[in-house]
Amino acid sequence: MNASMIAAVEVREQDRLVLPADTPNRSSGRRLLANALRVLAIDAVEAAKSGHPGMPMGMAEIAEALWRRHLRHNPADPRWPDRDRFVLSNGHGSMLLYALLHLTGYDLPMEELRRFRQLGSCTPGHPEYGVTPGVETTTGPLGQGLANAIGMALAERLLGAEFNRPGHCIVDHRTFCFVGDGCLMEGISHEACSLAGTLGLDKLVVFYDDNGISIDGPIAGWFTDDTPQRFEAYGWRVIRAVDGHDPYALDAAIDEALTPCGKPTLICCRTVIGHGSPNRAGSADVHGAPLGAAEAAATRASLGWTAPPFELPEEARAGWDARRRGATAQAEWQARFDAYANAHPQSASEFLRRMRGDLPDDFRETADAWVAAVAQKSEPMATRKASQQAIQALAGLLPELLGGSADLTGSTLTDWPGSGGRHLHYGVREFGMAAVMNGMALHGGFLPFGGTFLAFSDYARNGLRLSALMGVRVVYVFTHDGIGLGEDGPTHQPVEHAASLRLVPNLDVWRPCDALETAVAWRAAVERTDGPTALLLSRQSLPVQAGTGRAHDAVRGGYVLADDGRPELVLIATGSEVAIAMEAGQLLAGRGIATRVVSMPCCEVFDRQDPAWRRAVLPDGIPRLAIEAGATGLWRAYVGLDGAVVGLDRYGESAPAADLYRHFGITADAVMDCAQRLRSPQL
Amino acid sequence: MNASMIAAVEVREQDRLVLPADTPNRSSGRRLLANALRVLAIDAVEAAKSGHPGMPMGMAEIAEALWRRHLRHNPADPRWPDRDRFVLSNGHGSMLLYALLHLTGYDLPMEELRRFRQLGSCTPGHPEYGVTPGVETTTGPLGQGLANAIGMALAERLLGAEFNRPGHCIVDHRTFCFVGDGCLMEGISHEACSLAGTLGLDKLVVFYDDNGISIDGPIAGWFTDDTPQRFEAYGWRVIRAVDGHDPYALDAAIDEALTPCGKPTLICCRTVIGHGSPNRAGSADVHGAPLGAAEAAATRASLGWTAPPFELPEEARAGWDARRRGATAQAEWQARFDAYANAHPQSASEFLRRMRGDLPDDFRETADAWVAAVAQKSEPMATRKASQQAIQALAGLLPELLGGSADLTGSTLTDWPGSGGRHLHYGVREFGMAAVMNGMALHGGFLPFGGTFLAFSDYARNGLRLSALMGVRVVYVFTHDGIGLGEDGPTHQPVEHAASLRLVPNLDVWRPCDALETAVAWRAAVERTDGPTALLLSRQSLPVQAGTGRAHDAVRGGYVLADDGRPELVLIATGSEVAIAMEAGQLLAGRGIATRVVSMPCCEVFDRQDPAWRRAVLPDGIPRLAIEAGATGLWRAYVGLDGAVVGLDRYGESAPAADLYRHFGITADAVMDCAQRLRSPQL
Repeated sequence: MNASMIAAVEVREQDRLVLPADTPNRSSGRRLLANALRVLAIDAVEAAKSGHPGMPMGMAEIAEALWRRHLRHNPADPRWPDRDRFVLSNGHGSMLLYALLHLTGYDLPMEELRRFRQLGSCTPGHPEYGVTPGVETTTGPLGQGLANAIGMALAERLLGAEFNRPGHCIVDHRTFCFVGDGCLMEGISHEACSLAGTLGLDKLVVFYDDNGISIDGPIAGWFTDDTPQRFEAYGWRVIRAVDGHDPYALDAAIDEALTPCGKPTLICCRTVIGHGSPNRAGSADVHGAPLGAAEAAATRASLGWTAPPFELPEEARAGWDARRRGATAQAEWQARFDAYANAHPQSASEFLRRMRGDLPDDFRETADAWVAAVAQKSEPMATRKASQQAIQALAGLLPELLGGSADLTGSTLTDWPGSGGRHLHYGVREFGMAAVMNGMALHGGFLPFGGTFLAFSDYARNGLRLSALMGVRVVYVFTHDGIGLGEDGPTHQPVEHAASLRLVPNLDVWRPCDALETAVAWRAAVERTDGPTALLLSRQSLPVQAGTGRAHDAVRGGYVLADDGRPELVLIATGSEVAIAMEAGQLLAGRGIATRVVSMPCCEVFDRQDPAWRRAVLPDGIPRLAIEAGATGLWRAYVGLDGAVVGLDRYGESAPAADLYRHFGITADAVMDCAQRLRSPQL
Repeated sequence: MNASMIAAVEVREQDRLVLPADTPNRSSGRRLLANALRVLAIDAVEAAKSGHPGMPMGMAEIAEALWRRHLRHNPADPRWPDRDRFVLSNGHGSMLLYALLHLTGYDLPMEELRRFRQLGSCTPGHPEYGVTPGVETTTGPLGQGLANAIGMALAERLLGAEFNRPGHCIVDHRTFCFVGDGCLMEGISHEACSLAGTLGLDKLVVFYDDNGISIDGPIAGWFTDDTPQRFEAYGWRVIRAVDGHDPYALDAAIDEALTPCGKPTLICCRTVIGHGSPNRAGSADVHGAPLGAAEAAATRASLGWTAPPFELPEEARAGWDARRRGATAQAEWQARFDAYANAHPQSASEFLRRMRGDLPDDFRETADAWVAAVAQKSEPMATRKASQQAIQALAGLLPELLGGSADLTGSTLTDWPGSGGRHLHYGVREFGMAAVMNGMALHGGFLPFGGTFLAFSDYARNGLRLSALMGVRVVYVFTHDGIGLGEDGPTHQPVEHAASLRLVPNLDVWRPCDALETAVAWRAAVERTDGPTALLLSRQSLPVQAGTGRAHDAVRGGYVLADDGRPELVLIATGSEVAIAMEAGQLLAGRGIATRVVSMPCCEVFDRQDPAWRRAVLPDGIPRLAIEAGATGLWRAYVGLDGAVVGLDRYGESAPAADLYRHFGITADAVMDCAQRLRSPQL
């Protein structure tokens, strides 16, 4: 990212949403509104007979202060581009968010709250992106929501720098995030918050639910950080020791947090978990289990709450309804946007395209020409290098492409000539990178990709899982994809990783064999609209495979690369092992055995092809042999028990790459021997 | 962990290893010794044509100060129980460690340094436990060595509390660790160091190689933490701004670090990466590539080093040789240990047993009786509950068993009645827990196990991989092992996890179906001597399966649970799906289809059985159908392309468990339908 992009844009003084004239006793009015959140959480958890009441009860006043006085959103349009983003990183407190969405006027009727945690409801146990209107990201796996929020704040910063114009500010919103002790214990909180401090993401405000309790009980035995000091060490502004049950103290803290200072802000809120429960407040018992009928009743009594379950007093409904304010706020923005569109029509339509996530109208045609040009080239190269060339080509077509690497830029080749700063140095933070990319993709306006060594995809694995679960478009550039990386040894050599990524639902895993397949893979990744893609790329140079029509065939995920006619054996290979399969095919031909070589750069895409294609590529009744320098088990889904796999079910070694291929018997000769045994088992 | 166990034992004032009377110019003598490390690193990287010279050149003076003046070790006995532990967390600087081991007198001849990074050498690209004498842990994946060191320091603390006696101090050593910026950016550094601060591990000293450079260049663009402040927030003692190239400043810092204060110590050493290289020092260029012949020569000239590559002046050899000092130190300890053994013979032999990692002599017999007793029980229960009972039984036999959980103690059931504090609250730190357990296992004296939800094994995945790569005995208790966890929803429901763990080489993955299989699995885990085990356990209650001889059969990893005689179909299932397979078998029998049900609690163990057993369990020629509520692909290795799998290749949902099994079609009826289609494909 270059300096001009991260320079803070001129901050427009946002209209603060001042609380409307309240009941004479303003404090008791606000208490009522907070208690509405509490009671809905209690009711839903009781009805579901499972869930987490403690957090919603502890953060009710914080939610009231933020959502009623400060959050700019429009319940009628959860996709309003310039809405403030709100992330509940402590996602087990999902009922807090569902109550807020219901009460402020989102399309989440009370009936859905009654169906909390039931099959097919819009109120699953943890908030899920795409299931509930107004839920900005899927949370529950702790710490990741916080990193998503940082990605959203970063996207806002970058998008504003790119699209705002003098006198026209169309991107100018905040990102708010709730976190608990669990989020702050997780390592990803360090990775992401350290980065946020360096980047000075000053429109990010995080509320720390400092209640001193985690699932195992009082945290004094395992979490004694001076959290304010820790965040100051990251370069954050920290507002300390705010009474999280005093709405006016919270107002003052939020007001302070919204004054510009060039830093993200952490508001440390002292709260009592399960606040309002006479016998359970302040204890771990209230974290993750229903209060039970008796304690629920006692809590209602203690709060002075007389309405029956799932019913609300009219003043609570009225006090929470944010539809009019939201419509006004969005209309004000729309007027500004219209003026912008008038002055900068191309930028305006480009902005809307980017936020929709559509590719440019001419993308298909241009990409066809680009892939066709790549197909003409014959220079051997590492697929990581081919990936860099693909990135460079795509970046010219797709300004939303935003690269990055976890401190391996020169190895993963994620930056490119002429990137003009469209590349982030994430530092040695693989998991943080994944979750920040998820946040950017969710925010909209960007198509993020990030690189590390394939072996270290392990560090990022749950972030990648959430990309897939949410179905966001993020591209993982995993280079050094096998023993071919050589001397760095087994800690750095992936063995099980390709297979284990293929097991992740809704992740497409490409392992291309040359520059053409790399281009096809990259194109598929950016054209995918419903999920992430992992690209597994070689460190070492790979030859270019011959064959016409490959640009079309490779799109199918698996295709016939070479065929001797009437093959007696089908060799299936991916990536760096395709060349070995081709060589083995030659050797076998020399022994009078006709083979077919199938290149299978993406099993998931191949599996989605119609049966006719799949049968044409892998005909029934011909033995199959798969070759991949990694775990063999999953290949049985293609070769069956009668086939064979030449692979590696143990850890690698530190040595030059060629020595390793020989040492582990992943060579054309070994494939030939295996093929001969397969045809004549008695050998 | 209870208070008495963590109370610091009375600290014996260790004999400090004072530098022997040196050359008249002491400073130049020490400089020569540091330069010997530098030059060996340069030579080895040049010879290998790959590697990382920058870190060894930057940390040479720190290594000299620590290893020559403070580290208590005996090159002749790398397994001396009371040696100080040294961990190179920035493992890419492996040549620093190899040079130290060679020079101080370990069995690592110069010939091995010449073979740096070559196949079969004892000097792989990153330090590997078990390959090189004196290497305490495998490092390279950043941040984990630091967490290993914390585990070692914790093991020392706990072991001392357990075995030291008034007047007899047999466990009293330090743990030293080198870390770089990369380690400190990684999230795991937060998890582990936060925990170390809470635990007050005051015999841990960490040296931070503060050189301002990571692979992507000067870190100012991505890592601007105030690291001293951050560590003070964790409750560490921080010694700031030490000149990392001034041996006397380093001596003073180490002396300060060794004065007791109840906290771990971070020494921040300002260094220049590649120090000594006239043209590359201080730049990222020197991090991970050879200097090249010209710059290597220029560096030698600049250092005044005239000896040829891989040769050393005699004063360097003499100055580094630690064999006599090491022998003296160990002899002194041995005398103390002998006195201890005289006074407390049972404790002494128990201590030695624990450090060897042997099970008690009577373990086998006692365990046989215990498993036989479990086989008599018929109470349905969740396998997590059965696991707790197994832990309780084993804990009585194995005092080395040390439990823990990542803030899910009440859910993973890793603590047990009467544990007496032998259970750690790791906090919400899955990755940290894994790496701390690795450190404890490597230290010796403990058999650590730790729990979290199976879905969050993702967070710990690379730590678990290193358990397996190193072959250490660590037990992972992964509960809530599928959609059976119910309402928490897809973020918490593992789908691909069982399969993806099975892909990790040298990891045994058990998914038991009832209390008996759980006992067998636990026993196998503690009897394993060459690697870690993952136990996948149900949240929900499971019925007890019938059958005599199961206690013996289950040990084989896969066995016949039920057989109608002359089966026409083999059903294979694991864990919670075994009961479904049994029910399906009944239904099929009702339709006149004879089945066999195979329980396959551990595929890895089954695969290691002799072919006769495997063929007897899974006879050729009978169609097979596998049932597991997770990713199906890997089961093709057992059922082939002609078989079928009833499983789940998509994400789960939030709903009660029974609803989910119906919704996803993982029921006895669905199995029956599938079985019928398998037998009559035209249906």
